[in-house]
Amino acid sequence: MSGATVRVDVPDDSLFGPENMPYGVFAPPGGEFRAGVRLGDSVLDLPALLDDPVFARPDLNSFLAQGPAARRVVREKLRELAESPLPADAVHAVEAIRMTLPVRIGDYVDFYASIDHATNLGRLFRPDAEPLLPNWRHLPVGYHGRAGTVVVSGTPVVRPCGQHRTDSGTPEFGPSRRLDIEAELGFVVGTASRRGEPVPVDEFADHVFGVALVNDWSARDIQAWEYQPLGPFLGKSFATSLSAWITPLAALTRARVPLPPQVPKPLPYLRGTDDTGLDIALTVTWNGDTVSRPPYSRMYWSPAQMLAHLTANGASIRPGDLYASGTISGPEPGQRGSFIELSWGGTEPVIVGGAERTFLADGDEVTITATAPGTASRPIGLGEVRGTVLAAHEP
Amino acid sequence: MSGATVRVDVPDDSLFGPENMPYGVFAPPGGEFRAGVRLGDSVLDLPALLDDPVFARPDLNSFLAQGPAARRVVREKLRELAESPLPADAVHAVEAIRMTLPVRIGDYVDFYASIDHATNLGRLFRPDAEPLLPNWRHLPVGYHGRAGTVVVSGTPVVRPCGQHRTDSGTPEFGPSRRLDIEAELGFVVGTASRRGEPVPVDEFADHVFGVALVNDWSARDIQAWEYQPLGPFLGKSFATSLSAWITPLAALTRARVPLPPQVPKPLPYLRGTDDTGLDIALTVTWNGDTVSRPPYSRMYWSPAQMLAHLTANGASIRPGDLYASGTISGPEPGQRGSFIELSWGGTEPVIVGGAERTFLADGDEVTITATAPGTASRPIGLGEVRGTVLAAHEP
Repeated sequence: MSGATVRVDVPDDSLFGPENMPYGVFAPPGGEFRAGVRLGDSVLDLPALLDDPVFARPDLNSFLAQGPAARRVVREKLRELAESPLPADAVHAVEAIRMTLPVRIGDYVDFYASIDHATNLGRLFRPDAEPLLPNWRHLPVGYHGRAGTVVVSGTPVVRPCGQHRTDSGTPEFGPSRRLDIEAELGFVVGTASRRGEPVPVDEFADHVFGVALVNDWSARDIQAWEYQPLGPFLGKSFATSLSAWITPLAALTRARVPLPPQVPKPLPYLRGTDDTGLDIALTVTWNGDTVSRPPYSRMYWSPAQMLAHLTANGASIRPGDLYASGTISGPEPGQRGSFIELSWGGTEPVIVGGAERTFLADGDEVTITATAPGTASRPIGLGEVRGTVLAAHEP
Repeated sequence: MSGATVRVDVPDDSLFGPENMPYGVFAPPGGEFRAGVRLGDSVLDLPALLDDPVFARPDLNSFLAQGPAARRVVREKLRELAESPLPADAVHAVEAIRMTLPVRIGDYVDFYASIDHATNLGRLFRPDAEPLLPNWRHLPVGYHGRAGTVVVSGTPVVRPCGQHRTDSGTPEFGPSRRLDIEAELGFVVGTASRRGEPVPVDEFADHVFGVALVNDWSARDIQAWEYQPLGPFLGKSFATSLSAWITPLAALTRARVPLPPQVPKPLPYLRGTDDTGLDIALTVTWNGDTVSRPPYSRMYWSPAQMLAHLTANGASIRPGDLYASGTISGPEPGQRGSFIELSWGGTEPVIVGGAERTFLADGDEVTITATAPGTASRPIGLGEVRGTVLAAHEP
């Protein structure tokens, strides 16, 4: 080990300034997975810098479980370290490392919190009925997804096989023909709750650690045939991609914005004294072409309301649990966070690479990025969630 | 440590003979949780008897991950030990120990595999429509439940609060008034699969370790209001009870029975060369009165078909994953595995303790037990799953 030190230089156009410092789990060349924070184009090696064995583990769960006060102390310490010369072997170039899932996810819940998305999907899936179901404005509708198939950004996604309906009305089995994305924001639980004890809206920040980007890959043909009456299952469970970096809530204080009007007024357990939305702007690129810019600020239900609802029946949460917003769609066509909406059920193709496209083809790559307000000169970047579609393994 | 030995005596009427020997995780008085097998009214202390550190852990996951061949060797060894004098400190009286969840559950999936239950629920939830939806006979309908609120048998269940619809059409929030049970069989995964690689019907026994009893507590009023379009969420996620003992598939070879006719013939990925059901007879008691005897042998979809479907899209499974059958109901009224069916939506009360009852009251206790064919003189017992309802914590 050399005694050399380095100062981490943050390029002017970097979205990872000292106000951001998201957490992830990485392995340097030849090394084991461990916790790190990103600063500019560098990754700070936490076990090398901080005297706590939790950072040497291959997931952030034990660190998250230490609670909000302990996490604040670490963040302050890292802010100080970011200004100082650091041991050279505690700083890695981001291009040189491998990343893995930042958390061991206990339960994964996906909501349906965008009124524009829910309205669009209602029109497409149930064309003869009211698009918004009677419960939608009263509670954040959600369901459990498969925790074991959440993968880190960059992991290829194999096109799923499954049953889909044919024109004759009977189903057939084969590769999905309507493979889609859902651009979402994910919320990572830091602090557990106890079974039987709901988390009130105002205690959101005591329990949620941070925010990540989610692509909830969806096979629309499988989903359409299977989803009644128990909801999505195989149309979603083959893969959900999560960004490698988790931005702590502490980095998003300037992103807080008033919620859109909620009519009717939610029941008391869904009302807080200081509840807000988040002004986070997403960008969806398809083979490098920007096809959508979903605005998180338009989401109907707040992150705190989703958590209060999830736990209202006494369901407990654990460090590393993930819940996501559901597809983020704004009111404009260019703000839709899924291709089934962008192409209006496949009837209105999108131009990608100069060609007309509806759903995903093998080899396609989708990348979702996002920014939030930071300092005057530097927004907060949420990293990216990226995936390439591989051909189905046919039986 | 004394050198004394004991022979384990199995009472004639015990359902836990040497052909059964289910696995669980227990703590002797003053000791830590560890793996054990039940024999008669005794529990064999596996870390004291077998030279493998996996048995000293507080869950069976690492043992299950060793695979079917390793598990067969352990079972053979235990069959031999059951015939021999054992060190006295490796044998505990079942009344003296505490039990905990036998596995750390990664993902929990619940199916809907009883045609009688699905038909009954369809009639009750959608009285103006065909009770069985078009997909039901083509695939085992299922959804993901909450793994983090699966609790071991004996854990009290707090009545959940939630939104339910009022006569005015708007919802209110409060304790569930239609708290129910679902008597189910659970399947515990032993061996993992890889993401992208489906588990064929014929490979069921290579991946599933054993069978347990499940009570999937259900708040019908919360469920009825929330479940469209994404399925059950808070109506189920407050608690799911699992029996403490897992009976290995190896103990259930005599329980294999032909499946009921499946019409139409399932798609090829749901057909195996030797697929069977299980002749397991359940008993549901409510405050000590037997109210139902659901027959698992009548289930439409087989355990192997459920697993093949769950993984058909490439979703992977992990040791300790749990999937359950859904409510087991037979065609007769006395064979219904939920109270919403037994009381026909609360309109036809059941007599319990001499009084007319529909849904669960605070203080009620429900116990589900089951047996499978064993030797001529001794059936295989599946233990029990038991829970008492506690009053809601009102906000």
